[in-house]
Amino acid sequence: MTAVIDLRSDTVTKPTPGMRAAMAAAEVGDDVFGDDPTVNLLEARAAEAVGKEAAVFVPSGTMANLVALLTHTNPGDEVILGDQSHIFQYEVGGVARVAGLVTRTLANLPDGTIDPAELRAAIRPETIHSPGSRLLCLENTHNRCAGAALPPAAVGELAEIARRRGLAVHLDGARIFNAAAALGVTAAELAAPCDSVSFCFSKGLGAPVGSVLCGSREFVARARRFRKLLGGGMRQAGVLAAAALYALEHHIERLPEDHKHARRLAEGLATLGPFRPLPPQTNIVVVEALEGRVDDWIAAFAAEGVLAVAFGPGRFRMVTHLDVSRADVDEALTRISRIVGAAHR
Amino acid sequence: MTAVIDLRSDTVTKPTPGMRAAMAAAEVGDDVFGDDPTVNLLEARAAEAVGKEAAVFVPSGTMANLVALLTHTNPGDEVILGDQSHIFQYEVGGVARVAGLVTRTLANLPDGTIDPAELRAAIRPETIHSPGSRLLCLENTHNRCAGAALPPAAVGELAEIARRRGLAVHLDGARIFNAAAALGVTAAELAAPCDSVSFCFSKGLGAPVGSVLCGSREFVARARRFRKLLGGGMRQAGVLAAAALYALEHHIERLPEDHKHARRLAEGLATLGPFRPLPPQTNIVVVEALEGRVDDWIAAFAAEGVLAVAFGPGRFRMVTHLDVSRADVDEALTRISRIVGAAHR
Amino acid sequence: MTAVIDLRSDTVTKPTPGMRAAMAAAEVGDDVFGDDPTVNLLEARAAEAVGKEAAVFVPSGTMANLVALLTHTNPGDEVILGDQSHIFQYEVGGVARVAGLVTRTLANLPDGTIDPAELRAAIRPETIHSPGSRLLCLENTHNRCAGAALPPAAVGELAEIARRRGLAVHLDGARIFNAAAALGVTAAELAAPCDSVSFCFSKGLGAPVGSVLCGSREFVARARRFRKLLGGGMRQAGVLAAAALYALEHHIERLPEDHKHARRLAEGLATLGPFRPLPPQTNIVVVEALEGRVDDWIAAFAAEGVLAVAFGPGRFRMVTHLDVSRADVDEALTRISRIVGAAHR
Amino acid sequence: MTAVIDLRSDTVTKPTPGMRAAMAAAEVGDDVFGDDPTVNLLEARAAEAVGKEAAVFVPSGTMANLVALLTHTNPGDEVILGDQSHIFQYEVGGVARVAGLVTRTLANLPDGTIDPAELRAAIRPETIHSPGSRLLCLENTHNRCAGAALPPAAVGELAEIARRRGLAVHLDGARIFNAAAALGVTAAELAAPCDSVSFCFSKGLGAPVGSVLCGSREFVARARRFRKLLGGGMRQAGVLAAAALYALEHHIERLPEDHKHARRLAEGLATLGPFRPLPPQTNIVVVEALEGRVDDWIAAFAAEGVLAVAFGPGRFRMVTHLDVSRADVDEALTRISRIVGAAHR
Repeated sequence: MTAVIDLRSDTVTKPTPGMRAAMAAAEVGDDVFGDDPTVNLLEARAAEAVGKEAAVFVPSGTMANLVALLTHTNPGDEVILGDQSHIFQYEVGGVARVAGLVTRTLANLPDGTIDPAELRAAIRPETIHSPGSRLLCLENTHNRCAGAALPPAAVGELAEIARRRGLAVHLDGARIFNAAAALGVTAAELAAPCDSVSFCFSKGLGAPVGSVLCGSREFVARARRFRKLLGGGMRQAGVLAAAALYALEHHIERLPEDHKHARRLAEGLATLGPFRPLPPQTNIVVVEALEGRVDDWIAAFAAEGVLAVAFGPGRFRMVTHLDVSRADVDEALTRISRIVGAAHR
Repeated sequence: MTAVIDLRSDTVTKPTPGMRAAMAAAEVGDDVFGDDPTVNLLEARAAEAVGKEAAVFVPSGTMANLVALLTHTNPGDEVILGDQSHIFQYEVGGVARVAGLVTRTLANLPDGTIDPAELRAAIRPETIHSPGSRLLCLENTHNRCAGAALPPAAVGELAEIARRRGLAVHLDGARIFNAAAALGVTAAELAAPCDSVSFCFSKGLGAPVGSVLCGSREFVARARRFRKLLGGGMRQAGVLAAAALYALEHHIERLPEDHKHARRLAEGLATLGPFRPLPPQTNIVVVEALEGRVDDWIAAFAAEGVLAVAFGPGRFRMVTHLDVSRADVDEALTRISRIVGAAHR
Repeated sequence: MTAVIDLRSDTVTKPTPGMRAAMAAAEVGDDVFGDDPTVNLLEARAAEAVGKEAAVFVPSGTMANLVALLTHTNPGDEVILGDQSHIFQYEVGGVARVAGLVTRTLANLPDGTIDPAELRAAIRPETIHSPGSRLLCLENTHNRCAGAALPPAAVGELAEIARRRGLAVHLDGARIFNAAAALGVTAAELAAPCDSVSFCFSKGLGAPVGSVLCGSREFVARARRFRKLLGGGMRQAGVLAAAALYALEHHIERLPEDHKHARRLAEGLATLGPFRPLPPQTNIVVVEALEGRVDDWIAAFAAEGVLAVAFGPGRFRMVTHLDVSRADVDEALTRISRIVGAAHR
Repeated sequence: MTAVIDLRSDTVTKPTPGMRAAMAAAEVGDDVFGDDPTVNLLEARAAEAVGKEAAVFVPSGTMANLVALLTHTNPGDEVILGDQSHIFQYEVGGVARVAGLVTRTLANLPDGTIDPAELRAAIRPETIHSPGSRLLCLENTHNRCAGAALPPAAVGELAEIARRRGLAVHLDGARIFNAAAALGVTAAELAAPCDSVSFCFSKGLGAPVGSVLCGSREFVARARRFRKLLGGGMRQAGVLAAAALYALEHHIERLPEDHKHARRLAEGLATLGPFRPLPPQTNIVVVEALEGRVDDWIAAFAAEGVLAVAFGPGRFRMVTHLDVSRADVDEALTRISRIVGAAHR
């Protein structure tokens, strides 16, 4: 049987033998009591990696963002965010259902930013009639914007507008190391203009489970209470943290490889006729289907062992990662080419 | 002393002698027990006036909208609405703080509508990742869009898009009779494509207090519970309902007069130099200040007994109503002309 | 036809001619702009009447309480309150649905108080695991506890326990003037140990609509925002405030009369056989039905033009008020006696 | 240095070598896509173990309970629960802050149950004035009630009262296998009268992380959405599930040993003078300090390497578990005896 090439997401990576060994050997304790040395080390390292004072480990990127929302705001406040952001698109409305926030959605530009003038206009003056604008959320890389990497200047300009008006800024940096690699800067530079930043170990970094929310010591201390509220306090979480530490140490430097694979994949798809891939900046390839129904293409790919996901009207997404080699990309292209040929026959 | 000409809002009207007499003579009962005959009559007449089965009387337009949001949705659902809508701009974020709804803000076009293509794109498919899009809110006339009156076709097209995808449609018709008068249609025609409609007795209609939320019998029955939740259940509310009934009977036909006054006011202001009024469709005149700071103009007007309110960056608003005669408009223009002259000396 | 004697509640009173005249003559303005002189006067007088700095007028007692909850707490905090309190029993769960508060219910003793030792035990130490206990709510007179009047010492002891531990104290004083009359103290003495107090004009005081929330200037300023959030901001509310002012001036001194009527009613009912009335302290008579089903008794009374309401298992309630004379009480007893006689035949 | 004997909680257990080996060898996939075979197997086994159709794996017991609350109710509904329950005492008020529920707290009796008559009286009739009583929560074993094991008849009686009145019943069975072991029944028998049941792998069962919520297939399908909302969706969660599966297979039968150790510990403490342990039914020993301050005792124990936690006024708690041998219990008693001796000198 043909091996499956899973391009649905970089979340599908499986722990490597080295990572499994690290988990098996992890020194652990009860993290709810603050006793897990591996979690404590991971939180210190993660904070350092993005240039913040402190960090708190959580089971998912969704929880990292939700805890950030809860910690920065009070119910009834307003958060301004891109209409294509992960928080708005994929987090089940926790922003309103759990955090009670008014969401002001501004159009995301194709590069993942929002128009500074629109941001300026959206921030409200303080009146008795309106909720207070309290938080700006940005995302880097920007998943729905084809994995766009926002350069420090863009992040800085938007954050500056918000902060001058008294808003806090949270950066959903689920894939911040992909952005850093693509731009040739450090993650800390990207996070510097923001009050808080979250990132995931379970995406490009290849760990099985876990994300982290970073910010000032005071911010993170308050965030721990909200983690507990949501049920994100785990016990011997060191078994997960060990894998995340391993990922921090071994899987950041290799991210440019995924980006190269993504470009190769996009270029290959572009030659086949029915597809127009958006030029990938990182490890995400968003593809417009110029003919046929997206669901049919995805089903046809899956029948040949190539997995992709639908991604908005007329589009599908493919993501390269740790478990996808250059040979896998080529094999995927071969299979897809065969499918296209058959479709055109 | 100079008489004050109050153009801040049509909410400032004071009850006429006839209206006061109606209040003084009102037959009343305990409306929480359903025993107030005047409230019951008002609810029947109000429902009829907008072509719905039933209505519930509430103390304000804000409560009418909030009860509508609560009745149409569950916390965590999504409402789509214009970024300039009263619900989003002036209702203290109750949509999220109280109703727990995700707000998807689409740009209001200058005519008070939203782009049908944007609406279509904003309605979400059902997935485990996202809140369900459940409600579309429209506003007619549209306060922040210079009192624009949305014609039945525009309302119908947007409502149709929403309803086909399973969304309910609520019309914030705070000034729906102004829209009807401007367009030469009935309020019922404007409300027909919508599942619910609210309107205010305390704006152009000149009653002291009260609004109404109208819809199907089943919808209104459920709405009563949410009115109680918010503390909107009143006792001998017939004293207010009597004024509202009087307004329904006597003050709808005269609305075109306010519209004429608004046009006269706008034309007058346009000749003075520093002001560019948006052409008024109804009783709201939104004016861009081409020179000077808005707050300074408003203060200068107030010093001469002409009251206006700031209305977004670089703009102020003046509203004509029952207590503003043609002579008042002319007198206001005379005073403002004097102020402009002094400013230019 | 027999005149109806309505003993369902003291909310059913209809405005007197004097009160109607006051309403008809009320000077009004737009209260959302702070321009209504009658509302402003009423708020000043109401605050004075309960010895607080400031007050805000709202459409109902339920809203007064809900605004108090919102102003004293943040979502996720805990409120401690009697399990028979109006807030817990009759306000549709707004305490959780709108204010997001954890409710710690302690058993109300028959005198309307709660056990001080239970209160002490219920207040939580501050930990990361638990919500913070932030507010104690008391009620005076206590509706479900047969209109019990809590003396200053009882209120003071409980309030003191709470305040020492950092909790605020809100007094639901819907019928506080009944309590003051029964105890021979001022309402201000009853409210003194509490941070905020609400009371209703539309119950024993006989006004058609409205309640008030009183507290420090700073507290009331913040409360106004929450009133707006809930849709309790009204326009020419002076028409209601005029009635409330009239009630403050004319209907407080006569409350002892209602209490006398209540005692007469209770004594009369006690002689009839099937009923055991709890001894009334104020204007509320709670009656245990020793035989028969409560719903059947209520229906039989209603058939003879005497209205009462069910009030927990095996009980009904009758309330005396402005519109019930001594002759009405006697007539009600005569009719009920006839009904009992017929039932026993 | 003296080895620490950690009796703070059974959550402090560290994975055994066999468990670590299982984790290291776990077959995994992306559980958000439903692709993790080990998670899927665990969910099936867990459901079976408590006699329910389906189960969903979550990172903590707090999340299991919060998801249960969200899935059984709508915001504004009422939940009835013991005032000493974990949900009410230790879960940061998520029941109100996140789920928006009114909490009706009934006194827990020392055996962990609540008085059936109180429960009957607390369930509300349906009216427009009150929230609907929708859910009863029970806890077995009952942590704050000294680890009491509620027998099937007690659970059944309370559940039956609730279900007849239309309430759902959730059992917080964090330590349900301890209850089953103590009572000589199966966990399924204990869970049978309840609509849903949660239990923890990270307490007596000794796994590092994770809990499970079980119920009907339909219930669990809806619960998955709420897990996602809270950020409890994890990726290659099989690494945790493998440990949990190992725990299910190897660590249930040994629980009676922990119970024996608890009794031995309690008996030993009782002989020392200053302590009155409540007779332990399972692995939890709650101890009243007859002299001295609890915080001082805990500090003195800790200085000798015996860890306990404060547990309400005048009480501390010690818990036996997988990492505490009979020799450890004896050594702990020896050290404490020394401390008591020194204190009395």
